[in-house]
Formats: sequence, C-alpha cells, structure tokens
Amino acid sequence: MIKYPNGQSFNPTPKKVRQQRKDKKDLSISASNRGMDLEGDINLSNGYYKNSGIALVTKRPTPINIVKVDYSKGARITDAYFEKQSTTDYNGVYKGKYLDFEAKNTKSKTSFPLSNIEQHQIDHLKRVLEHGGIAFFIIQFQTRNEVYLLDASFVIEFYEHGERKSIPYEVFKQDGILIKQGFSPRLYYIDAVEAKYFKK
Amino acid sequence: MIKYPNGQSFNPTPKKVRQQRKDKKDLSISASNRGMDLEGDINLSNGYYKNSGIALVTKRPTPINIVKVDYSKGARITDAYFEKQSTTDYNGVYKGKYLDFEAKNTKSKTSFPLSNIEQHQIDHLKRVLEHGGIAFFIIQFQTRNEVYLLDASFVIEFYEHGERKSIPYEVFKQDGILIKQGFSPRLYYIDAVEAKYFKK
Repeated sequence: MIKYPNGQSFNPTPKKVRQQRKDKKDLSISASNRGMDLEGDINLSNGYYKNSGIALVTKRPTPINIVKVDYSKGARITDAYFEKQSTTDYNGVYKGKYLDFEAKNTKSKTSFPLSNIEQHQIDHLKRVLEHGGIAFFIIQFQTRNEVYLLDASFVIEFYEHGERKSIPYEVFKQDGILIKQGFSPRLYYIDAVEAKYFKK
Repeated sequence: MIKYPNGQSFNPTPKKVRQQRKDKKDLSISASNRGMDLEGDINLSNGYYKNSGIALVTKRPTPINIVKVDYSKGARITDAYFEKQSTTDYNGVYKGKYLDFEAKNTKSKTSFPLSNIEQHQIDHLKRVLEHGGIAFFIIQFQTRNEVYLLDASFVIEFYEHGERKSIPYEVFKQDGILIKQGFSPRLYYIDAVEAKYFKK
C-alpha cells in the first residue's frame, strides 16, 4: 500500500475507475458514471435484443488470413495476419428490414473527425442505401457521454462533399437521434432505429 | 514427360480436369462439365451481384479467437484457434429485405442428410424468420449437378419433427427452386430468391 506523506493511503486506481467498478458490482449503474466501451456496449445490447426477440444484429468477425495451421495441436493457428474488413462491423434484421452500421467514438466535444471512417465503409453503406437497406453510424461523443444514431447519408455527404474534415456536433443534435442509455440494453439503439425509420 | 510403353505421352492430370481447365480458358463453360465448388461459386456470384448492383450479400468471416500477437513482426498472429460460427455463413440485402442463408452440398442422389446442419444454424434461421427476414438453404446435389434454394422453414420442420435424418430429394423438386447455373453469375440464386419471395 502506497501512503501519502500525511499517512492517508494512496490508491493507484483513479477514483473514477473505482467508482465504476463499485457501480458494476452494485448493478446500479448510472450512465453518467459508467465508463463506456462502445463496442462492448453494442455487443451487450445485441445480446439483449436477440434474447428478447426485438431484433437480430450480429457483429462480423474480424477477417483473418491464415498462413499456417498446426493440426498436431488440434487445428491451432500458428501463423496468420489481420485482413481489412471490406464492409462495416454490424448488420442484421429488424421488422424484416436489413440494417447495417458502423460504430465509432470521438473524444472531441465539438465535432466528429472523418479520419475515423474509411473509404470502404462509405462505399459499403452507399450500396446498402442503394438496395433499400437501413444504413447508419452510431457515434459516441465520449466526453459528453452522448451516443447518436446518424443516417449514413449525412456521413456520406460530409465525407464526399464536405469542406471540413469533420461533422459538427450540431449536425448530430439536429439530424441525429440521441440514443438512450441504460443497463439492459446498454444502448437503446433499436428505439432510435424505430423513431428514425419506422415511425411515420 | 511420362510415356506409355507404346510411346504415347501420358499426362498425369486426369482428362476431366484438363477439360475443365480448357473450358475455363475458353470462357465457354458448360455447367455439366465444370467441377463445382459451392462456396467458391457463391462468393463469385456475390461479387457479380455486388458489382452489377443487383444485391449485396457477404460471407461472414470465420470467427477466430486470438491468443497471441507478435507486434514486432507487424501484428502477426502467432497463436489462435477457430471458434464456432454462431450464425450462418451468408447474409445481405435485396430490395430492402434481409437475406440470410447457409450453403451445403451432398453427394447423395436421393436425399440431403441433416447431419450436415448444426443446431445453431437452425436456431439462427428461426430467429431470422421471426423477424420477417428471408431465410433459406442453398443445397447442392453434387452428383446430379443440381443446386436448389429451399426455404428454411422446410429444413427446420424436418430437423425438428422429421422421422428421417434426411430431407428426400423429392422435397427439393417439389418445394425448392432449382437454381440456374452459368458463367457469371455462376449461380443465379437471386433469381430464385425473386421467384420464391417477391413474385406474387
């Protein structure tokens, strides 16, 4: 145990992290305290949506190019490398419709930097839109603790024709849907899909 | 060059394979001559459908659990193992609707053995149907050189309530859609999807 000169014990774990751990134990998490892991939260939400029969969305595994497999060890991969995903990370079905999205986070309070997005993700989501699918981004403003659904068409527009290299926060406020956060699901993003694409 | 005792040269490559290679060069493949690789043919067909703007269907990468990565070699994976896919192999979008399917082949002429199908694939396709998605199997009868689309509901019924451990060929003839084969796409399976699910 490390102690301050005044004898008070010093815990090397930051207070915020300790609070988060305590919150997790308590199962009484308030979203504002909780440390967010966007991908983990989406995966947990997908598990909830699957089990409760609301939607079926899965994460595409990371594509890996396998060079060598050792069958003497029961098909253990001993040499391989990561390949580039040619699509987005998530797709699935809700009310018969095809959903496809990418999730990203930023620490910026004022805008979402487009450098976070890759050309192949834009190309893929354009195709999804052409085929009548629902295509969007889930963007987390980490320091604001806010998560938005923004239709892919806005992102494509900024990516291809925008003068700035980022999408201003105001665009999310105005054209995005703020995703409610909670315990289960962590992210009520299907509510946002419903509000944006299904409510007339 | 190996020669027969009579002086005629012997080509170690079987005649059928040589014929297939010649056919590939000629770009004039007749389906009956061509050696079929179902997965390869579906992937090629998906490429065709994507590039021609007809449908967008992708193969889910095989999920791999990574144990060790050597970053000194530029993120080379040095220890990993295969995980079980918890879904099917293919999903995508056609005319806004969600498609999901699994592809299997059999050498049997008379029936498709259900031992080819795993419980998690049945569970996944049941969920797809519950959410209003289009769920089917693409089954290749290899020795007949025929490929059928069969709605997942038939397979689920046989899997869960059938007395036999296989689906008779006659079921495919009667309730399936025979998929046309060609050069590009190799498998006109979207035509079968259109005929089965979109034509009124």
